[in-house]
Amino acid sequence: MQQIVIESAEIVAIGTELLIGQTLNTNTHYLANQLNLLGINAYYQTVVGDNKERLEQTLRTAVSRSDLVITSGGLGPTVDDITMSLVAKVSNRPLVLDKVSQKNIQAYFTSSGRVPCQNNWKQAMMPEGATVMPNNNGTAPGAIVVFGFDGQKKAIACLPGPPDELKLMFEESLFPWLETKVKYRFKNRFLHMIGIGESNAEMAIKDLIEQQVNPTIAPYASPGEVCFRLTERIAKDSAEQNISENESNSLSLDQLAEEIYQRLGQYIYEDGERTLPEIVFDLLKEKNETIAFAESCTAGLISAQFGELPGVSSVFKGSIISYSNEAKENLLQVTQSILEKHGAVSEETALAMAEGAAKTLNSDLAISVTGIAGPDGGSEEKPVGTVYIASYYKGQTHVIKHLISGQRNRVRKVAVLRAFHLAWQNLMNKLN
Amino acid sequence: MQQIVIESAEIVAIGTELLIGQTLNTNTHYLANQLNLLGINAYYQTVVGDNKERLEQTLRTAVSRSDLVITSGGLGPTVDDITMSLVAKVSNRPLVLDKVSQKNIQAYFTSSGRVPCQNNWKQAMMPEGATVMPNNNGTAPGAIVVFGFDGQKKAIACLPGPPDELKLMFEESLFPWLETKVKYRFKNRFLHMIGIGESNAEMAIKDLIEQQVNPTIAPYASPGEVCFRLTERIAKDSAEQNISENESNSLSLDQLAEEIYQRLGQYIYEDGERTLPEIVFDLLKEKNETIAFAESCTAGLISAQFGELPGVSSVFKGSIISYSNEAKENLLQVTQSILEKHGAVSEETALAMAEGAAKTLNSDLAISVTGIAGPDGGSEEKPVGTVYIASYYKGQTHVIKHLISGQRNRVRKVAVLRAFHLAWQNLMNKLN
Repeated sequence: MQQIVIESAEIVAIGTELLIGQTLNTNTHYLANQLNLLGINAYYQTVVGDNKERLEQTLRTAVSRSDLVITSGGLGPTVDDITMSLVAKVSNRPLVLDKVSQKNIQAYFTSSGRVPCQNNWKQAMMPEGATVMPNNNGTAPGAIVVFGFDGQKKAIACLPGPPDELKLMFEESLFPWLETKVKYRFKNRFLHMIGIGESNAEMAIKDLIEQQVNPTIAPYASPGEVCFRLTERIAKDSAEQNISENESNSLSLDQLAEEIYQRLGQYIYEDGERTLPEIVFDLLKEKNETIAFAESCTAGLISAQFGELPGVSSVFKGSIISYSNEAKENLLQVTQSILEKHGAVSEETALAMAEGAAKTLNSDLAISVTGIAGPDGGSEEKPVGTVYIASYYKGQTHVIKHLISGQRNRVRKVAVLRAFHLAWQNLMNKLN
Repeated sequence: MQQIVIESAEIVAIGTELLIGQTLNTNTHYLANQLNLLGINAYYQTVVGDNKERLEQTLRTAVSRSDLVITSGGLGPTVDDITMSLVAKVSNRPLVLDKVSQKNIQAYFTSSGRVPCQNNWKQAMMPEGATVMPNNNGTAPGAIVVFGFDGQKKAIACLPGPPDELKLMFEESLFPWLETKVKYRFKNRFLHMIGIGESNAEMAIKDLIEQQVNPTIAPYASPGEVCFRLTERIAKDSAEQNISENESNSLSLDQLAEEIYQRLGQYIYEDGERTLPEIVFDLLKEKNETIAFAESCTAGLISAQFGELPGVSSVFKGSIISYSNEAKENLLQVTQSILEKHGAVSEETALAMAEGAAKTLNSDLAISVTGIAGPDGGSEEKPVGTVYIASYYKGQTHVIKHLISGQRNRVRKVAVLRAFHLAWQNLMNKLN
């Protein structure tokens, strides 16, 4: 059957919990971003509840105006999980039992020492001819159905609602499938910067942004950092021949990146998609060195982010979350005199915490954070957002005072980023 | 003119930044929650870009199927801010200059020492007869237009896109207006459960779900837990008189909850909207007791979630992230013999970690977690997902072995939930 080409898509999120504002719709946000990276145009996003008539109507409308419809949610075992049966109806395919899904569901329950009940098998029913997407984070498999609609090829892809399951299934199954169905390939480069604000970063390349055709520049700001996404559109068939060659006075992707390095190189910590914790992990592995953390106001956020990385135990000795002064004294050897003289939130305490962590946990590098995340605890001299971040690396100590604006969680989030940045500066020998 | 009654509404968020996944749609989440509190049924949410045809079509569709449409965004001064003019078109009203808005815009610029440029006055143009909503956080005023559509009274309310402007305008102007237009209120109860799967939980109340009229039951699951949302519709005038009284054989909200408690009470940890960490925090404050954590595979996630809660330092002594055996020995006094004989992932190590944490950090309660999050480290005897969670509370120790399915991050996430659950079980004296 003739190959489907996907240029436009829309996202249909299914669930009453979204309609009543109980759950924030992060799935659609994630999927929209991924479609954008694939160069697929998205003109609509819809949220609809677990209601047969409304969901069917929504699916028909979406299919009529877009090449691809991605649904999230409604794949569970309960009676109000109706997505798959309505997708079967809209695509005019009968639901049939998928043996592989049946086996996987059995295996999933066995592995977690439970027994599937009758309605779990409902999750193995798939529209005939569907490409089944395994769920490696849960029981509900997904499906891609390609079918004819008003003489055109259309596709509906069904993903589960839980974000962990949706994200993994998209990465493992849907993204690779979509890559083969899009018209253009998009080559992206991500330049990640710390230490410069979004507007200043944009000002520095104003001229490049104004004259952009292909490649394009999209600036993204997230708390504490800035990223430029450079995107070059390439004709699919000949990955070599950049279609922008015909477009006058536009630089190649690499020339553009080079130009940006010339202007903002000192702020760029990553040219790619690694996160700062991943970069720190890679550097430690290269150097065969170890790290430890001493966290106060971040209360484990730094360790938790580092602990997310598979295999990290080879370089991660451990951490001490010293919420109480007791912990600072007993576990980090911060002397009472330091705490009394300078306070728990001070340069001196931060430095002592870093050194204490390195020694107690016997690591090459240690990073410490102590600060006031708020809402309480601020003072004239040390307002909410005051955060001291210190490092101890092979006998050398370093401390930086930050004043982070925003609410408690923003302060903590930015502090985590700064902590990894200080680790990076130590390992890259970029401290001045 | 005849009074409009609002029973149904939908939200239309306008902006390309939402379609490409650059901005998370928190406005719709906020508005949906507010509509739910007002007892207004919301059947759809839509996101559409700054495109005349698509936005007009979206507005017409929304108006045709709901009493009220709330838009967010597209009220700015630039040419691609088209919301107000299209609302005027759909409601069939000419745009007229609103003198009050004109004055406010002038005042806003004066107060910030700037001069309005020509297209700022565009923001004072309102559909004739609209109820204007002042913007006390920015320049763009909002509007409520009530008009006839297919012989029915409909309303469109336009709010600005910046969340802090939208929120304030909703609270100050739209919410009070809506309160006078609604017919019903909804009363919700949320029953949160741990220790039972979604399908088993639903099986246990299958009969109640099948006979539901008012109140209704909506089950949904998130990793490691299940929640039933019970919703009762109440006549607005007499909040006492439940309209379901006329509906045969249906229970009241409280009777229904009572019935569910009878069947699933042992799994219910919250009848409300608090998270498990919040509940544990509240219990510790009540008892004036303290907590500490010893984390291995969760690597700080438990501490980080607990640390999110403002004021937690009053009950939170600190934590030890013992990724290395070194840390387990030096900081938690887990003896070498235990580690050698039983391994780092074992009941014995988990128990020793909990006791060690309670003693080192001098807390009343300590929770420890040690397990294999994967992808590596699994064995025949202890596969990936094997997690031991132990507690030490006033001299009593307790340990539970979990087998958690899914990928590294799911294993860690569920382990965190189980850890807080064990803390809860201790504080509620629910251990058997």
